[in-house]
Amino acid sequence: MPTLQLDLGSRSYPICIGPGLLGRSDIIAPHIAGKQVMVVSNETVAPLYLDKTLTALIGFHCDSVILPDGEKYKTLDTLNTIFTALLKNRHDRSTTLIALGGGVIGDLTGFAAACYQRGVNFIQIPTTLLAQVDSSVGGKTGVNHPLGKNMIGAFYQPRCVIADTDTLNTLPERELGAGIAEVIKYGLIRDAEFFVWLEKNIEALRARDPASLAFAIERSCRNKADVVARDERESGERALLNFGHTFGHAIETGLGYGAWLHGEAIAAGMALAADLSCRLGWISAPDQHRIEALFVRAHLPVRAPAQIGSEQFLDLMAVDKKVSGGKLRLILLKGIGQAVISADFDPQLLRATLDACRTA
Amino acid sequence: MPTLQLDLGSRSYPICIGPGLLGRSDIIAPHIAGKQVMVVSNETVAPLYLDKTLTALIGFHCDSVILPDGEKYKTLDTLNTIFTALLKNRHDRSTTLIALGGGVIGDLTGFAAACYQRGVNFIQIPTTLLAQVDSSVGGKTGVNHPLGKNMIGAFYQPRCVIADTDTLNTLPERELGAGIAEVIKYGLIRDAEFFVWLEKNIEALRARDPASLAFAIERSCRNKADVVARDERESGERALLNFGHTFGHAIETGLGYGAWLHGEAIAAGMALAADLSCRLGWISAPDQHRIEALFVRAHLPVRAPAQIGSEQFLDLMAVDKKVSGGKLRLILLKGIGQAVISADFDPQLLRATLDACRTA
Repeated sequence: MPTLQLDLGSRSYPICIGPGLLGRSDIIAPHIAGKQVMVVSNETVAPLYLDKTLTALIGFHCDSVILPDGEKYKTLDTLNTIFTALLKNRHDRSTTLIALGGGVIGDLTGFAAACYQRGVNFIQIPTTLLAQVDSSVGGKTGVNHPLGKNMIGAFYQPRCVIADTDTLNTLPERELGAGIAEVIKYGLIRDAEFFVWLEKNIEALRARDPASLAFAIERSCRNKADVVARDERESGERALLNFGHTFGHAIETGLGYGAWLHGEAIAAGMALAADLSCRLGWISAPDQHRIEALFVRAHLPVRAPAQIGSEQFLDLMAVDKKVSGGKLRLILLKGIGQAVISADFDPQLLRATLDACRTA
Repeated sequence: MPTLQLDLGSRSYPICIGPGLLGRSDIIAPHIAGKQVMVVSNETVAPLYLDKTLTALIGFHCDSVILPDGEKYKTLDTLNTIFTALLKNRHDRSTTLIALGGGVIGDLTGFAAACYQRGVNFIQIPTTLLAQVDSSVGGKTGVNHPLGKNMIGAFYQPRCVIADTDTLNTLPERELGAGIAEVIKYGLIRDAEFFVWLEKNIEALRARDPASLAFAIERSCRNKADVVARDERESGERALLNFGHTFGHAIETGLGYGAWLHGEAIAAGMALAADLSCRLGWISAPDQHRIEALFVRAHLPVRAPAQIGSEQFLDLMAVDKKVSGGKLRLILLKGIGQAVISADFDPQLLRATLDACRTA
C-alpha cells in the first residue's frame, strides 16, 4: 500500500500518497505504538480535516492542540504550547504526536516529538503541497529564532507520512504556488527529465489536475527520499535540497516571517541562484531563461523585494547555516538537473546578482 | 590520559578526572573541531573558573554567555538566551559549546548544542560533585517545564567530559552533600562493595579528602559509563539510574524548583523508595536502617517535606516519565546494590510510605 519507502535502516518509514487516505484507520493505526495520541493542527486546517482524522483513530485516547496559523508562530513559545497540552493531558513516553497541517505544523510537531520526554513517536499528515513534496519527508524539524530561520531544531524521523491528495482541493492559490516552487526545485537540482515534464505540465499543476499533481508529488518524494537515504544528517549531498534557500531565507528574515510564503521566497532564491550561476558561466543564458520562465508561468516571484538592500541581504545570508568556517557556501547550478555546493565564486558576481535581481 | 572512556561506538568519549585539568589545552583542544567556541557558565562559576578555562582555549575564537545561577533558570527561556548569544556572535555549525558549571549548566548547554542548527559539538566541564558523578556523563540534556521536571530534552552526547577535582574546593557544603547523594545511589542500585566503602568513608567525603573524593568520582563514573554504554536511550537498565527520582522530582516540583537541591530531593526520594521496598518485604529492616543512616551521616534528608500532602505527592509522581501506559513504575530495591524497576507493588503500601516518611 505505501507508495514508497524512505530507507534509513531501523528508522525507515513509508510514505503513502493518494486520494481518500485521511479517514483510513488501516493506514495510520499500525504506526501508533501506545494508546495516547496528540493531534497538532492549526486554526485553518483543523475545521477542515480534524474530524476526519479522528475517525481513523477510534480506540485511541486522542487529544488535540490547535495552534494559530502562520510561519510567524513557528517559535519556541508555540512549541511550549504543545508541551503544555501534552503535560496537562498527562501524555507519557508512549504517546504519538500527529502533525495535521502544512510545513509549519510539521516542523513544530516533529521538533516537539523530538524533545518531549527526550523523544516520542510522531506521524506526518501534510495537507499542503509544499509539506507533501518536501517538509514532511526527511526528518528536518525545528523552529525559527528572530535572528534566523530554522536555527533551532532536530533531525527526527516520523513513523510514517500520509499525504492525502484530496486535502489540496482546499489549498489557497498562493500556497499551491509555493508548493510548486519546491517541486520545480527537484527538477533543477537532480532530475532534468522531470524539469522537462514540468515545462509541459505546469499549467495542469496550477489547475490542480489530479493525475498531474499525483505524479509530481510522487516524483518529488522519490527524489527527496533518495537523497535523504544517502545523507540523512546533511553532511554532503542533502545540502543540495537547500537550493535557493540561503537567498530565500534572507528574504524571509529580512521581510519578517510570513510576509512572503516560504515557497515564494525559495522561488526567488532559486532564480537568483540561477542568475549567479549564469554570471559565473556555469549555465547558459537560454537555460537561465527557461528556469525563469517556468517560475513566471507558475506565478512565482523571480526577484528579491526592493526593500532589502544588497548590504543587508549579504548580512542576512551570512547568518545562514551553510556558512562554514566563516565562508559563505552557496548551492548553484552547473546545468538544469545538476546542482553543486560551492564557496568558489567571485563575491562581486554575487553582489551583481543582488543588485540586478530586485523588484523595481 | 583519560581516566575512563564511555563506549558508544562512533559517539564514544573520554572522561578525564583529576586535579589541575582546567587550564590544560592538551586535554580540551583535541575535542574542538572548528575555530569557534561558546563557553556557557553562570554568575557563580564564571568569576571562579572562566578565565582559567579560557587560557586553555587560546587560538580559538571564544565567546561566553553567563546565565543566572539556579535550577529555576533551567527553562526554555534561558535556552533561548544561549541561542541568541550564538546567533548574535554568528556561530556556525562547526562551533563547539562548552558547559562550565553544575548540572543545570550542563543540561542547558547540552540541550542547546543538540538543537542549535540541529546539532553542534559540546564539551562538559562539570564543576560540582553532582555534575561530575552524574549529570555530565551519559548525554541526558534538557530543561524543565512548569508542569514537570526534565520534560523537554534530548539524548545528546558530549565530545569529552573534563572533571577537575580542584573545582570542588569552592563548592558550598549543601551542594557537596547533594553530590554525595548521587554517589550513594550507585552503591544502592548496583555496587554493594562501593556502598560498604561509603559506609567507611562518608565523613572523609564530607571533609573533602582529595583521595576519597577522587576514588568516589571515578567509581561513580565507571558505574554510570557501564550502564549508559549498555542502554544509551533508556529502554531498560538505564532507568535504574533514576532510583529515587520519581519521588525526588515530586518533591522538587511540589516545592518549586530550587527550594531543595536536586541531590537533596533525590536523597529523600531514595530513602522513601527504600522504605517502600522494606514494606514490600524486598529488603530487610536492618538494610533499610543502614541506608537511612548513611544519608543521615551525609547530612541529607530522608523525609519528604510536610507541605506536600500524600494526594498531591501521588499526583506529582503520576506526571513522571516512568509512567507507562497509565501505570506508575518505580525503581525499588531487592537488596543493597540491587535495584529493579517495577509496577508490581500494592498502591496502599506506597500510600503508607508517603504518609509515614514526612517531616513533622
